[in-house]
Amino acid sequence: MKDVAARAGVGLKTVSRVVNGEAGVSSDTERRVREAITALGFRRNDSARVLRKGTTASIGLVVEDLADPFYSPLSRAVEEVARAHGALLINGSSAEDPERERELALALCARRVDGLVIVPASDDHRYLAPEIAAGVATVFLDRPPGRIEADMVLSDSFEGARSGVAHLIAHGHRRIGFIGDRPGIHTAKERLRGYRAAMAEAGLPVSESWVALGPTGSDRVRTDAARMLDGSGGAAPVTAVFSGNNRVTVTLVRVLAEPEWRGRPVALVGFDDFELADLLSPPVTVIAQDPADLGRSAAELLFRRLDGAEEPPRTLSRPTKLVARGSGEIPPPD
Amino acid sequence: MKDVAARAGVGLKTVSRVVNGEAGVSSDTERRVREAITALGFRRNDSARVLRKGTTASIGLVVEDLADPFYSPLSRAVEEVARAHGALLINGSSAEDPERERELALALCARRVDGLVIVPASDDHRYLAPEIAAGVATVFLDRPPGRIEADMVLSDSFEGARSGVAHLIAHGHRRIGFIGDRPGIHTAKERLRGYRAAMAEAGLPVSESWVALGPTGSDRVRTDAARMLDGSGGAAPVTAVFSGNNRVTVTLVRVLAEPEWRGRPVALVGFDDFELADLLSPPVTVIAQDPADLGRSAAELLFRRLDGAEEPPRTLSRPTKLVARGSGEIPPPD
Repeated sequence: MKDVAARAGVGLKTVSRVVNGEAGVSSDTERRVREAITALGFRRNDSARVLRKGTTASIGLVVEDLADPFYSPLSRAVEEVARAHGALLINGSSAEDPERERELALALCARRVDGLVIVPASDDHRYLAPEIAAGVATVFLDRPPGRIEADMVLSDSFEGARSGVAHLIAHGHRRIGFIGDRPGIHTAKERLRGYRAAMAEAGLPVSESWVALGPTGSDRVRTDAARMLDGSGGAAPVTAVFSGNNRVTVTLVRVLAEPEWRGRPVALVGFDDFELADLLSPPVTVIAQDPADLGRSAAELLFRRLDGAEEPPRTLSRPTKLVARGSGEIPPPD
Repeated sequence: MKDVAARAGVGLKTVSRVVNGEAGVSSDTERRVREAITALGFRRNDSARVLRKGTTASIGLVVEDLADPFYSPLSRAVEEVARAHGALLINGSSAEDPERERELALALCARRVDGLVIVPASDDHRYLAPEIAAGVATVFLDRPPGRIEADMVLSDSFEGARSGVAHLIAHGHRRIGFIGDRPGIHTAKERLRGYRAAMAEAGLPVSESWVALGPTGSDRVRTDAARMLDGSGGAAPVTAVFSGNNRVTVTLVRVLAEPEWRGRPVALVGFDDFELADLLSPPVTVIAQDPADLGRSAAELLFRRLDGAEEPPRTLSRPTKLVARGSGEIPPPD
């Protein structure tokens, strides 16, 4: 800390204020201190910090959307690992807004969390570099960090989507649609890449009107599904759809249950499992991620860092699993 | 603050440390300061506080279980109101553990949230009185606070359950089971009271083997359901079941879909709506709460307090709505 203070040309108390997120430091001074911290690779001693803080240890989790059921078991798994380490979990949601993510992650740092697990909305995480250098352990989950090196835990989205589309092809489909999340999202891109790979491997052409990325709200998904299903996009109608995530799948289940499509059943495979998928008619075939396993893996990686593991950033890739239940095994009309 | 310092026999700096949750104060001194704060009804000035803190305003939300889908839209609604007020939302989960709730609520106060929305697990919230007196606005949601007076927003659990059971009676049922959450939980007690009221109003006797409160894990619910359905509890088998919340309902949907009960359909009404309830066979009749409305109402009440509303604690009771979809309209065998 003395070296940081000397390099930044400030007193020890000022360094302490910046590190602990206390007020009373001008933004210019704060920047100088943070630059000095980064330059010197200063790390706080974690045990000393908990003792000095005198409050319970805590970790922060930033997810994309609190209302998405994918994040419920994931959050709970992170919380269970935190609890096993005597720490509290504090959550926040970025609402898929990069600025909101930044604000929330820095607010959690200012409130002195010991570590962060982030499902990123942003593609530039340089704003976190000073915090990480100052000892806030950080693990990225579900999507990689942007422009910094850090630990991450990802599902194998590419391979999951590839195997789901190959499953539809194995059941006789040649015209398959893909409806996914916004094109800026890493998992959406990877799953689309998996779809294209499976189609290419089978020598099947892809009409661009069969591919739709965008927000996961039901209106957008309905419009894109209708276009692929009735052939109004210019290409022949699809006989099967691969859905890029559980929000899209739930809307597609509703669309396909409408009287219009009952006479001509359309096959469906969705990325992500969801509650009651097995009790629908037909039961929904999915590429299941294990959100609890993802949360647990990320939290365990985080506590390894907090316990002092000094190793280069790691990437854990978690496999997905095809769960065949009925909707993905419907054959094409003839 | 001077008066608090004088009364507690400490310096101004010590009062400031206690109020801001900083370390370096013995627990004995902290208690004396908090007692003085309570005695004097000391309130921090919120604007001054935000300025002094130099960080974004934030509110905390403590729920029972992050993995329960009831809390997803509720959390999101609280977050949206917070955002409209320029504040961040920080969440935590008590896992239905009173000690955990206390630890989390106090940790959020120590991390200087401006207000708290709490779905309580505890039945004694006196631990929060000094925080409330020190200006942390607090609203209880879904269940009332214990042993303190505070704002609260509750669904009308009694009336909702009464109307759901009356609906089953109107469809000809005389032997109706009730499977609910743990008996210590306010909403579980209120819903059971609604069940008993509807049965009494119709002059129907209740066998105690038709009533089961307990944890919402699927094993417990399955055991209790089997006893009521096959009559092994000593009383005649039930022809309908009223479920006390969405976790119980989802297990009951699975139980009733098993081959054993297909030949003798059992009517089901569940408290709480849930995603895809309308696409199951039969679609599930529910007493719907509006979790987004509950979250929004609580958050708006909180920001009224933060904006300086000085009025006695209020209780908002929100109505429920019967949504008839099919499972609750199945008649008894004869």
